[in-house]
Amino acid sequence: MTKILIVNPNTTASMTDTIGAAARAVAAAGTEISAVTSTMGPVSIEGYYDEAFAVPGLIQALMNAPDADAGIIACFDDTGLDAARSVARFPVVGICEAALVTAGQIAKRIAIVTTLPRSIVPLEELVRRYGFAERVQVTACDVAVLDLEKPGSGAEAKLEAEIARALDKGAEAVVLGCAGMADLPQKLSRKFGVPVVDGVAAAVKQAEALAGLKLTTSRRGSYASPGAKRYDGLLAPFAPKSLD
Amino acid sequence: MTKILIVNPNTTASMTDTIGAAARAVAAAGTEISAVTSTMGPVSIEGYYDEAFAVPGLIQALMNAPDADAGIIACFDDTGLDAARSVARFPVVGICEAALVTAGQIAKRIAIVTTLPRSIVPLEELVRRYGFAERVQVTACDVAVLDLEKPGSGAEAKLEAEIARALDKGAEAVVLGCAGMADLPQKLSRKFGVPVVDGVAAAVKQAEALAGLKLTTSRRGSYASPGAKRYDGLLAPFAPKSLD
Amino acid sequence: MTKILIVNPNTTASMTDTIGAAARAVAAAGTEISAVTSTMGPVSIEGYYDEAFAVPGLIQALMNAPDADAGIIACFDDTGLDAARSVARFPVVGICEAALVTAGQIAKRIAIVTTLPRSIVPLEELVRRYGFAERVQVTACDVAVLDLEKPGSGAEAKLEAEIARALDKGAEAVVLGCAGMADLPQKLSRKFGVPVVDGVAAAVKQAEALAGLKLTTSRRGSYASPGAKRYDGLLAPFAPKSLD
Amino acid sequence: MTKILIVNPNTTASMTDTIGAAARAVAAAGTEISAVTSTMGPVSIEGYYDEAFAVPGLIQALMNAPDADAGIIACFDDTGLDAARSVARFPVVGICEAALVTAGQIAKRIAIVTTLPRSIVPLEELVRRYGFAERVQVTACDVAVLDLEKPGSGAEAKLEAEIARALDKGAEAVVLGCAGMADLPQKLSRKFGVPVVDGVAAAVKQAEALAGLKLTTSRRGSYASPGAKRYDGLLAPFAPKSLD
Amino acid sequence: MTKILIVNPNTTASMTDTIGAAARAVAAAGTEISAVTSTMGPVSIEGYYDEAFAVPGLIQALMNAPDADAGIIACFDDTGLDAARSVARFPVVGICEAALVTAGQIAKRIAIVTTLPRSIVPLEELVRRYGFAERVQVTACDVAVLDLEKPGSGAEAKLEAEIARALDKGAEAVVLGCAGMADLPQKLSRKFGVPVVDGVAAAVKQAEALAGLKLTTSRRGSYASPGAKRYDGLLAPFAPKSLD
Amino acid sequence: MTKILIVNPNTTASMTDTIGAAARAVAAAGTEISAVTSTMGPVSIEGYYDEAFAVPGLIQALMNAPDADAGIIACFDDTGLDAARSVARFPVVGICEAALVTAGQIAKRIAIVTTLPRSIVPLEELVRRYGFAERVQVTACDVAVLDLEKPGSGAEAKLEAEIARALDKGAEAVVLGCAGMADLPQKLSRKFGVPVVDGVAAAVKQAEALAGLKLTTSRRGSYASPGAKRYDGLLAPFAPKSLD
Repeated sequence: MTKILIVNPNTTASMTDTIGAAARAVAAAGTEISAVTSTMGPVSIEGYYDEAFAVPGLIQALMNAPDADAGIIACFDDTGLDAARSVARFPVVGICEAALVTAGQIAKRIAIVTTLPRSIVPLEELVRRYGFAERVQVTACDVAVLDLEKPGSGAEAKLEAEIARALDKGAEAVVLGCAGMADLPQKLSRKFGVPVVDGVAAAVKQAEALAGLKLTTSRRGSYASPGAKRYDGLLAPFAPKSLD
Repeated sequence: MTKILIVNPNTTASMTDTIGAAARAVAAAGTEISAVTSTMGPVSIEGYYDEAFAVPGLIQALMNAPDADAGIIACFDDTGLDAARSVARFPVVGICEAALVTAGQIAKRIAIVTTLPRSIVPLEELVRRYGFAERVQVTACDVAVLDLEKPGSGAEAKLEAEIARALDKGAEAVVLGCAGMADLPQKLSRKFGVPVVDGVAAAVKQAEALAGLKLTTSRRGSYASPGAKRYDGLLAPFAPKSLD
Repeated sequence: MTKILIVNPNTTASMTDTIGAAARAVAAAGTEISAVTSTMGPVSIEGYYDEAFAVPGLIQALMNAPDADAGIIACFDDTGLDAARSVARFPVVGICEAALVTAGQIAKRIAIVTTLPRSIVPLEELVRRYGFAERVQVTACDVAVLDLEKPGSGAEAKLEAEIARALDKGAEAVVLGCAGMADLPQKLSRKFGVPVVDGVAAAVKQAEALAGLKLTTSRRGSYASPGAKRYDGLLAPFAPKSLD
Repeated sequence: MTKILIVNPNTTASMTDTIGAAARAVAAAGTEISAVTSTMGPVSIEGYYDEAFAVPGLIQALMNAPDADAGIIACFDDTGLDAARSVARFPVVGICEAALVTAGQIAKRIAIVTTLPRSIVPLEELVRRYGFAERVQVTACDVAVLDLEKPGSGAEAKLEAEIARALDKGAEAVVLGCAGMADLPQKLSRKFGVPVVDGVAAAVKQAEALAGLKLTTSRRGSYASPGAKRYDGLLAPFAPKSLD
Repeated sequence: MTKILIVNPNTTASMTDTIGAAARAVAAAGTEISAVTSTMGPVSIEGYYDEAFAVPGLIQALMNAPDADAGIIACFDDTGLDAARSVARFPVVGICEAALVTAGQIAKRIAIVTTLPRSIVPLEELVRRYGFAERVQVTACDVAVLDLEKPGSGAEAKLEAEIARALDKGAEAVVLGCAGMADLPQKLSRKFGVPVVDGVAAAVKQAEALAGLKLTTSRRGSYASPGAKRYDGLLAPFAPKSLD
Repeated sequence: MTKILIVNPNTTASMTDTIGAAARAVAAAGTEISAVTSTMGPVSIEGYYDEAFAVPGLIQALMNAPDADAGIIACFDDTGLDAARSVARFPVVGICEAALVTAGQIAKRIAIVTTLPRSIVPLEELVRRYGFAERVQVTACDVAVLDLEKPGSGAEAKLEAEIARALDKGAEAVVLGCAGMADLPQKLSRKFGVPVVDGVAAAVKQAEALAGLKLTTSRRGSYASPGAKRYDGLLAPFAPKSLD
């Protein structure tokens, strides 16, 4: 039995439901998915500011979970991923990184279609850090995250139009750039005749992979456990404890 | 049931045994591993020339397999990977790419330790293509591939010495740069206290991931199916057929 | 009169004193420096985890200040810089970025000497984002941040030894990679005969520059003001308000 | 009192007037601006050939100045900047580099709008050397440098049209790519609602910054003082003297 | 007398004739051109799969030649170039690499116009490996290789239209991206008023250069001669022999 | 008959003799070499300042030559190459670029061994612009340019020691990084058993190549002919004339 903990780092429970369903739909027979919603921070994550304030709630959710073999952060900005890896007792997967490494094994040129234009540059920076800058174009369909869930918002039509444009420019596969699109890949893949990768599903498989290989985050160098020290004020409870 | 076909693109059957065992050791409950040996080409792959002559046998093995949900090319040069992806009816995973995307989710700085110095530059070119140039150092322990299987060759001591040097230079995780090292990761990980990733094991998990997501190679652009045309001479049987 | 607000994003007031003194020592005649200490989060920032938890306190300090013409974040990781730029009513300067653009105008090859080895990779990522990857080597003297203030800690000797090593490897100028070293540049510059740049001092000048040019953060694209939305739990007070 | 020497490396005195006025408009209270015109070389600098022949006059102007705390080269190609840094007794600022480091602290994506198309590639090479290749697009409004000063030339309309195109393609801030545009930033910034950076103004602030920090060019490595040697012919007077 | 062996790695003899004629048209007085057709593999090379199967025939042709001072591989993908260099007794030139280094000495921005869209990404990967990524755009005129030889195919009009588009986007010189276009450069250069470089002609000159300098492939590192070993099956005859 | 004009851009005639001899030793049967010495500027070129003052004399020598089919600039910094290309009536070859493209066709990893340490960074910048940054290490043997000609200076021993170090670090071929080393490649190649490339010889072959292909510098974009305009003072004679 492999236990995977998925944290939705925004506080919108209905999005957690979409995410959990998408995760369970692809989980292997022996995998148990637990999807939790952050209890503090923004209702949706759009841009650098929201990102920064989603981290404490995300870390809290990761640390409070009873136990897990791997964790997933279900926001396409891979919000707080480095901090989470530094402290979690299990490997942690980001849905953007997972989607890219997956798409990168079935296509050379990839389009990420995200929600708002303001997310383009943050995602381009992420894509560069992950080493995909030469292979990926990032584009936005100009839909707010929470509108993805609203039937009459026209969100899906905008998304499809943007995918069509990306394919015209040479994309060979599409990555959906928001956890809130986790219910759409099969439908879109059939429509456009190319692989469409959802980060949540991809992350479940990467989490199963790391757990199955019994690999966890290196404690040497960048991800060394934070040294025990005092934290002040509101965030005092998050202070790293001495590890022994 | 997920069927994974692993092709050892060199013709040394004992190495296929090592590879198959390493694959089965990490395969999920519902995964069936089939490991086959190429029947034409070099007994080991060391450098550009051997690589080029391993491809026809590799393709033959991939095409002749009765059926599979995913394929793996078990040579760390990812020999023939692009050609294989262009024609296989299922997704194809390379063990170098699989090892890097796995290690990249648990460490920032990675060392690949390969066999002969002549493989360093070909691997550096691969690392660059996969987008890991800024994170990976490639180094060689100066052991011939087939000596990895010879008890008295001192191969393992040389490998360990090279790993120690790489960690001193800042590596946070180690990737074993030859399919013939597939039996060593646990032992080395315990010894050095860092994650040690074997490409064969990593590739099994990436193959399970792609198969589990029902994703296969995009036929748009780079990996378009080869057009039907005549091939001449010895290689005539490899000519692409009309697909319909 | 130009008002510059410097936020020390860790909660150690004695370090704020060092920072404030270094800032005042280089401020122009018409510049008023106000140095404040974050009231929530870690007592020192060492690695990804501490960084993430320093951001809320930093933002609070930036937003609560009565008014300012420019702001400075006085941690060499440029912690929270993008989030701060998205909401502050004035331009915000990071001390790492300021130090690099300053050193880059007086030398081609630059060494950043920071505190702990775990900070090397985060700083290398920052250096790359700022476009200095080809010109900068990052190195650590293996001193904890708060030990910089302890007379008997041997911190200064370790720092000097690391600078000597960096010059041997071709550095033409040195950047001090921690706000806690803000009192040392003149002394070290005299000792080694090369320019030594402290980020706090450099940032004061960049802040004066932006304020003097009446430039502030673009609201188009990446740094668009966060849309008004609900934040939940402990962090609810940080929710972006409607701007009008 | 900070003395800043600005050299216009072309021989057009009316452009020096524009430059001087733009500089004085942003100079700090204690800064004295001295703007001089080169006495030898091209009347305007457009492309590699003009650039090469502007350097001797530029160096002469820098060396003949009685004294200064910092120098500025007021041509957007940063003509002769490395040579100037090697010999000037004070730090030397280039207006392209100054504009980029300034714009880079208030926006992620930047457009440089220059004069003639032939300057695009030289500027792209400069942008790459300064580390901004991933963040900057260079574009030309197809106006000759000296036409910027001619009222009926339609230059300003062309410049505005090019800025509009650059913003459409995602620029978040604009850098004016010619010293002859130094009188336009405020007007353009108001019109387009984004930061518009003029290199001359930006350079004054960077010069004040370096002078205020008492930093000067490193003499170690790239910018080592030229060794004393004979120069022949017309250029004999420029021979480096023994320094002692 | 310099003997240059050109291998057409596809099996279409009429294309070898075009290639041979183009080579002889530019060969120096003392150069003897020998153009041979591969006897095994694809009739044309379009994409990764064809490429892989062209290599054995190519190597056979290079090794069977009585003697030569330099060799040329006349396929724009530089198919098998690294393998060929590892074993040939003379230097080996690829027509893509030769065309790029030639065009790069007469222009800064270069367009490669190739045949089918599926070749764009493989060529972009080659361009990157050769260090030209920042200077080259790769584009396709959507003509099958063998249609270049068919009078009524409209191939030339499509090629010209694509060249016009590339010049509009800033190309300063054009490289013809297929050996089958070797008869067109003069005509196209006259029509468009820019340098047009054919890889076959360029390669003849690079081959003359290497032969004239008595330089041959380094045997240290990447191109070390393949060690003697057994090859099995159909490809047994290609096994590297002991070199002494 | 191909006429190649080689300009030594420093004013030391004895070095021109060495250069001319090296050029004639490799020139093809039908090539006529004319080697001229600049009449104005530095006696040797070491660093950015000397470089800048070598350009006018170099251009003068290129323009005054009666006629030529190709030109060569015989300084390893490729001093003034872009300016020369903009105005010369024939293609112009730089010896650094020529050496790199030559070495790059016979080896993957290359060491440039130059004279003084101050030249390392300027050459690294050149290497990067030419696209060889990932393949080349630049190193200096700490010998002044003119000492290369002095028998008792120990220059050759220092050069050999530096070559040995570069090979230890993985270089597969060596490029001699100064025109004053043009007499040494054969001897060094025999001694170290690797290809040793001299830029002057390599440039002769590239010049023959361009002339043989009847290619000359593109006038579209970067290398557009300088527009006619006034130059003032000492350099007035260099003003570009109207071309028609």
